[in-house]
Amino acid sequence: MTRGELFDPVFGAGRLSSLLSDRAWVSAMLEVEGALAHAAADSGVITADQAVAVAAAARTLSGTLDPALLGVEGAAGGNPVIPLVRHLRAQCAPAGVPGAAVHTGATSQDVLDTALMLIAHRAGTVVAADLAAAADAAALLAVRHRDTPMAARTLGQQALPTTFGALTAGWCAALDRAHSTLTGALAGLPVQFGGAAGTLAALYPHGLAVADRLADELGLARQAVPWHTDRTRIGELASALGVAAGAIAKIATDVVFMAATEVGEVAEDAPGGSSAMPHKRNPVAAVTARGAALRVPGLVGTVLGSMAHEFQRAAGAWHAEWETVTDLLRLTGGAAHRLASCVSGLHVDAAAMARNLDATGGMLLAERVTGALAAYTPDARERVTAACAAGRRLDADPGVTEFLDPAAVRELLDPARYLGHAGDIVDRVLAARTPKKETPQ
Amino acid sequence: MTRGELFDPVFGAGRLSSLLSDRAWVSAMLEVEGALAHAAADSGVITADQAVAVAAAARTLSGTLDPALLGVEGAAGGNPVIPLVRHLRAQCAPAGVPGAAVHTGATSQDVLDTALMLIAHRAGTVVAADLAAAADAAALLAVRHRDTPMAARTLGQQALPTTFGALTAGWCAALDRAHSTLTGALAGLPVQFGGAAGTLAALYPHGLAVADRLADELGLARQAVPWHTDRTRIGELASALGVAAGAIAKIATDVVFMAATEVGEVAEDAPGGSSAMPHKRNPVAAVTARGAALRVPGLVGTVLGSMAHEFQRAAGAWHAEWETVTDLLRLTGGAAHRLASCVSGLHVDAAAMARNLDATGGMLLAERVTGALAAYTPDARERVTAACAAGRRLDADPGVTEFLDPAAVRELLDPARYLGHAGDIVDRVLAARTPKKETPQ
Amino acid sequence: MTRGELFDPVFGAGRLSSLLSDRAWVSAMLEVEGALAHAAADSGVITADQAVAVAAAARTLSGTLDPALLGVEGAAGGNPVIPLVRHLRAQCAPAGVPGAAVHTGATSQDVLDTALMLIAHRAGTVVAADLAAAADAAALLAVRHRDTPMAARTLGQQALPTTFGALTAGWCAALDRAHSTLTGALAGLPVQFGGAAGTLAALYPHGLAVADRLADELGLARQAVPWHTDRTRIGELASALGVAAGAIAKIATDVVFMAATEVGEVAEDAPGGSSAMPHKRNPVAAVTARGAALRVPGLVGTVLGSMAHEFQRAAGAWHAEWETVTDLLRLTGGAAHRLASCVSGLHVDAAAMARNLDATGGMLLAERVTGALAAYTPDARERVTAACAAGRRLDADPGVTEFLDPAAVRELLDPARYLGHAGDIVDRVLAARTPKKETPQ
Amino acid sequence: MTRGELFDPVFGAGRLSSLLSDRAWVSAMLEVEGALAHAAADSGVITADQAVAVAAAARTLSGTLDPALLGVEGAAGGNPVIPLVRHLRAQCAPAGVPGAAVHTGATSQDVLDTALMLIAHRAGTVVAADLAAAADAAALLAVRHRDTPMAARTLGQQALPTTFGALTAGWCAALDRAHSTLTGALAGLPVQFGGAAGTLAALYPHGLAVADRLADELGLARQAVPWHTDRTRIGELASALGVAAGAIAKIATDVVFMAATEVGEVAEDAPGGSSAMPHKRNPVAAVTARGAALRVPGLVGTVLGSMAHEFQRAAGAWHAEWETVTDLLRLTGGAAHRLASCVSGLHVDAAAMARNLDATGGMLLAERVTGALAAYTPDARERVTAACAAGRRLDADPGVTEFLDPAAVRELLDPARYLGHAGDIVDRVLAARTPKKETPQ
Repeated sequence: MTRGELFDPVFGAGRLSSLLSDRAWVSAMLEVEGALAHAAADSGVITADQAVAVAAAARTLSGTLDPALLGVEGAAGGNPVIPLVRHLRAQCAPAGVPGAAVHTGATSQDVLDTALMLIAHRAGTVVAADLAAAADAAALLAVRHRDTPMAARTLGQQALPTTFGALTAGWCAALDRAHSTLTGALAGLPVQFGGAAGTLAALYPHGLAVADRLADELGLARQAVPWHTDRTRIGELASALGVAAGAIAKIATDVVFMAATEVGEVAEDAPGGSSAMPHKRNPVAAVTARGAALRVPGLVGTVLGSMAHEFQRAAGAWHAEWETVTDLLRLTGGAAHRLASCVSGLHVDAAAMARNLDATGGMLLAERVTGALAAYTPDARERVTAACAAGRRLDADPGVTEFLDPAAVRELLDPARYLGHAGDIVDRVLAARTPKKETPQ
Repeated sequence: MTRGELFDPVFGAGRLSSLLSDRAWVSAMLEVEGALAHAAADSGVITADQAVAVAAAARTLSGTLDPALLGVEGAAGGNPVIPLVRHLRAQCAPAGVPGAAVHTGATSQDVLDTALMLIAHRAGTVVAADLAAAADAAALLAVRHRDTPMAARTLGQQALPTTFGALTAGWCAALDRAHSTLTGALAGLPVQFGGAAGTLAALYPHGLAVADRLADELGLARQAVPWHTDRTRIGELASALGVAAGAIAKIATDVVFMAATEVGEVAEDAPGGSSAMPHKRNPVAAVTARGAALRVPGLVGTVLGSMAHEFQRAAGAWHAEWETVTDLLRLTGGAAHRLASCVSGLHVDAAAMARNLDATGGMLLAERVTGALAAYTPDARERVTAACAAGRRLDADPGVTEFLDPAAVRELLDPARYLGHAGDIVDRVLAARTPKKETPQ
Repeated sequence: MTRGELFDPVFGAGRLSSLLSDRAWVSAMLEVEGALAHAAADSGVITADQAVAVAAAARTLSGTLDPALLGVEGAAGGNPVIPLVRHLRAQCAPAGVPGAAVHTGATSQDVLDTALMLIAHRAGTVVAADLAAAADAAALLAVRHRDTPMAARTLGQQALPTTFGALTAGWCAALDRAHSTLTGALAGLPVQFGGAAGTLAALYPHGLAVADRLADELGLARQAVPWHTDRTRIGELASALGVAAGAIAKIATDVVFMAATEVGEVAEDAPGGSSAMPHKRNPVAAVTARGAALRVPGLVGTVLGSMAHEFQRAAGAWHAEWETVTDLLRLTGGAAHRLASCVSGLHVDAAAMARNLDATGGMLLAERVTGALAAYTPDARERVTAACAAGRRLDADPGVTEFLDPAAVRELLDPARYLGHAGDIVDRVLAARTPKKETPQ
Repeated sequence: MTRGELFDPVFGAGRLSSLLSDRAWVSAMLEVEGALAHAAADSGVITADQAVAVAAAARTLSGTLDPALLGVEGAAGGNPVIPLVRHLRAQCAPAGVPGAAVHTGATSQDVLDTALMLIAHRAGTVVAADLAAAADAAALLAVRHRDTPMAARTLGQQALPTTFGALTAGWCAALDRAHSTLTGALAGLPVQFGGAAGTLAALYPHGLAVADRLADELGLARQAVPWHTDRTRIGELASALGVAAGAIAKIATDVVFMAATEVGEVAEDAPGGSSAMPHKRNPVAAVTARGAALRVPGLVGTVLGSMAHEFQRAAGAWHAEWETVTDLLRLTGGAAHRLASCVSGLHVDAAAMARNLDATGGMLLAERVTGALAAYTPDARERVTAACAAGRRLDADPGVTEFLDPAAVRELLDPARYLGHAGDIVDRVLAARTPKKETPQ
């Protein structure tokens, strides 16, 4: 009985689902076996004809081998590579390929680890593309709303004016950074090939050469040495996804608040309805991006907590990675996809932003009045605080107008005149952007 | 593209997979809708004929409605209940059932939450049964090996003698406790039914009665009040699974060490082979139990970290629970299943235990000699420590034999005479056991 | 160099800090040693005079022994009990107490585990009291605002009317449940006493009796058997705190939103100011409760992930518990304390609630109009949805008024007439409450 | 009441404790205020004399301001910066410095975030140095034991021969990589300076220049733009520490197993004793390194899960970072310190390694015999497996000797002749090493 089809679309993982499915895993493992045959042939360990036959058999099985069968058969040995090799040998045997020409010098972990690298590279590239799309959408908002005033909010309360451009430039900067870290991690994903004990003894003296050739065949980075129990790369990949999910969660949280009925500053392009309430305009993309992103930190903790791979193969910690890394790609990618939809389709209500900015009748700029008043009296802060506490408009408060002209106070209270470096921040973020490449290499 | 069939069997989740699949979710949601129709009819909100028609339509769809279609259709609204209700209404319409007679007074969260409770109850019962089976197997080992001496190990080093019975009684006690906590949590799982805003306004004044009747129909506990954003129950369920996984991990870790080549005290009944090394006898059940259990704590953290459900429905935290709770059931249950196989089939080598106990030539009982020596000299501990550091047998060390007869020392060094309350501990654990029920109610 | 004094007050851990400090740990360990002496004397293992002397020495050291010295001395052996026993023996020696009469039959883990139980019981009782105080405050709000209408919000958007009483009754129910689970966990915290290898061999045949007497002396529950490597109790304690923190986070999150400038439905009694903005009224108690609560789930994951205690003493997993459980008590307790202040001092602005409820011009009750309209036309939902989408008032929409009188529509749109079971929910929650006891036993 | 002194030394955090203490926090915050005064003076916002006076006052308070007082005073506003600024202003006032010349244009978060960067840079440098020391020690072992055969172990069981050099080269490679990632993260830690709302409005048009000058004064990297709610850097720092802790945990786990009584391949230079068992030689450094490292993944999850900083200042998620990042530095650094002691003092027993390698009577090289046999018969694997299962020596098994000469079999079974690329792996790892710098810049 399978899963994934019911909830993946909600969490944005449509495109990714096929790259992370059972079928994708089986294909990737067979791809590794096929490439290994070619690599072994290049070093003369098996013949070129054998390699061609093994690779052809692997391609055939890639479309026909039932993941469910492999799953059942793999339970006894603790991983699906053992039966997969058996099926591959059986598939080759009629062509006269001896068993030893299949899976030559490899151990199950070599095949699973390298398949995971392939899968992570492919799915990760999609994740990165969606991060880039979300960043581009945020950049576009920053350009368009470079000078659109809105209330800055700290600890949940209006603080001072800022611009929607500055806010979205911040979104863009975080996404760009997360994108860059992720593509860096993806570009370095190497083959993992160490043989039964990490010494490549069965292929000696060709082991390291076969490993390099295998990497080249698969389009992965070469390994310096086998890293079967050095899981720093896996930890870094998981972390890069975790940081990306965190950046996404911040943005989605901002959107949900701004879309709240009482705030009304943004709306999604395709809001969700309700099974019970026809008037609802739920920011579904932001909500589901949050839902997916919330699940990521615990999984990163699982990967980091599973890095203690004992000796030459871990008794459980290795197994814990397979689906966890898969889920990290799926959920971070899904969150990125949902966020890209959300941000790129955001309807911005600048009038609502202005209305909210005016909600406190100027108290928002109390800091500024304090600054002006401080030139005349040492208790400027106390005077302004007292006026605010009493709910008096600052241009009508005697403690303020004792020194400042009401008109001057009103000018000080104009949000559009107190945006500081908001525009500069937008410009700096945009200037620092480099064109995103879809395919990290 | 689906997943679950490739890795579930490795992690022991065979039986559970079908209870936690997309299909199981769809069926559970339809079961809730069907039961709701009956409950609404009992309060006169819809007619009995309508209820029968709705329930029949739900049963039909349970076998035919494609989870993948529901998944795709559910993306827009952010959950699969919205399209599910649409399909159910369409299925009923030819029988003259009006739309309002389907999903009466309910909101998506009511259906999803209650379906999750059904799924958790059913799958959790299987998890509990496997915990009980593992506990029973540990109890049997404790009975059989009540008096089999083995080395107790602290901080990785041999410490003193104990018995394999005392060790396995400890396993049993932890599993019994985890089982009891889990069945307690399962027994209390209630229906969740609050309507669009938690007030059941659309069903007023029948709302609370319909909720109770719905619980009875489904065999779930009644709710006191709707708990749509009080997630303490979900947190408790997740925690109970987390504690169970922790108890499992301890035992599996002990087995992996005892099965190590250098230790050799136990072997699994069906050890795993290797794709590369024909001589391997891997304790696969313990290894994969650990692999599954390692993934649980992060998921519990996710559930607890998602308890902040804002107001009347969370914008993401609710969504984060669906698959996470499912995974917790699957992984804890899989680990329990693997562990039950492991422990119930364990081959115990008492001779190896005795051999290991003798490995230090008696140093293990240094504490006992220290105690005897202390009757004669205040520096007993220093004398024994010096002898151990020098690698001298205690019955041949002058600092010891100055006061104690060598034969008396040798008797003090006999592990079988220094087992303390090991037997009592076994007896107490066994006496405290109550027969396990398969079905928590 | 110390820590704790700078940040503990912010996170509400004032009262708890002293119960969880280094000094509290040292005192608790010495208390265990003193009680052990009495317990051992009761079984005749040491003399009554020796017990009195040991207990007196322990009390003296409790005030004088420098935790920093113990810390430095404990590094070599990996825990502070080893030097603590040395100091205690030295303190007793002048009174003629032999070394063997101190720490009799115990191992470091016995003392540390039992001290942790003492600390957890004492600090946990304070945590529970603050949970109870917060629950009481929520109950009071529920009583006072049983019938105060406010907007229910789902997925961040206004959904339907509810009451502030129903919301706060939900807070109360979650806190009551968390309180009950925690006090249950605290009441069962037992002594842990197994000796060097868990068999109590050094005290045989008095071991189990000494353990029971030790429990009685300390006011802890008795152990069934030593549980040195069965950490289910620790996992349950951590989980109970985790669930409590989750319940707190939900409430604090609701408060922060309601206190937002644009919402303005509540304010804290002692809001925080800003170093830069004199007009700010930050809901500091709710904010810091969230800050503390956010840190809890990861720590629960750490405790659960550290349950695999190998054999008779874990090589690291045990050590990982000490500060983690301490932090769990401190942070959950701090969050509870902050939340109790927040909720008990909450200023509620019912007028603002009414104003927000009116913000959509009645769209909030669209569901109700749909229901009424459905008696006349099968496309009721479509008509209402279209009116909402067009931003037309429902009492002025031709698609609605074709069947319903405008005055009837206006009545349907009155929130106070569509509160469903909100009042019943308040009544049920309050009726289910039992008086909280400050001291779990 | 304080904490930290009792347990920090056990977890190796001696040197770090003072860099992460309450006092260190207070000093760092005052250092930021002092540097800010100079930076503001450089832009002409305050006078040079004022700057000198503020910086001098900050230095004075750095030694005298009581963290506990600040803690208590900070509770009301939710952070210690508010009272700290008050104290600093009071300290300056006698010198005629107006309040506005202190904390000019800054908000609490600027000071706390930048202080955290200072603390992280300083403590992180110590962490990195200990990682480098551990890596150097592993490299030295790899050099010395490049050709020392030992049993490779997979899934807890002996698999094939490898060398202790290859194992420790793997340790070295992981530590080098973790070191490199961490120093990269440290080198980029920037100042954070955005003013009350992130626009630096109070300093306009000097805001960005003041921020850059502040960075230069403090020796931190410059910010591109304020990153008050873009926490990608914090997430990356936490992740780098998490990956380092994972690399440490792997090594410590290997050491604990190799130091086990039954294995006996290594011993620590300063093993720990026991309060009860005089013969114990506990690998305390490895054990406590594990204890510290186990606590890290949950904390990384907390940091990543707290990245959703709403708008311009988070209502809780920001507060959750302060102590969590501090703890991450302390625990990862403590683990690194303990591990460096462990590895650099490791006593290696090559004879025990040889003895263990011989424990299976040659079965370990079954793979190699299979390979040789495969030249003669297609059922080579079955023959070897059958011999192993029967416990027959391969040089005496008829199924093997039918084709291979017993002497040839014995040669095939010599571990020293089947080390594959183990030596090459050592050479590659060592060749890739670059000299470590103590201070990342």
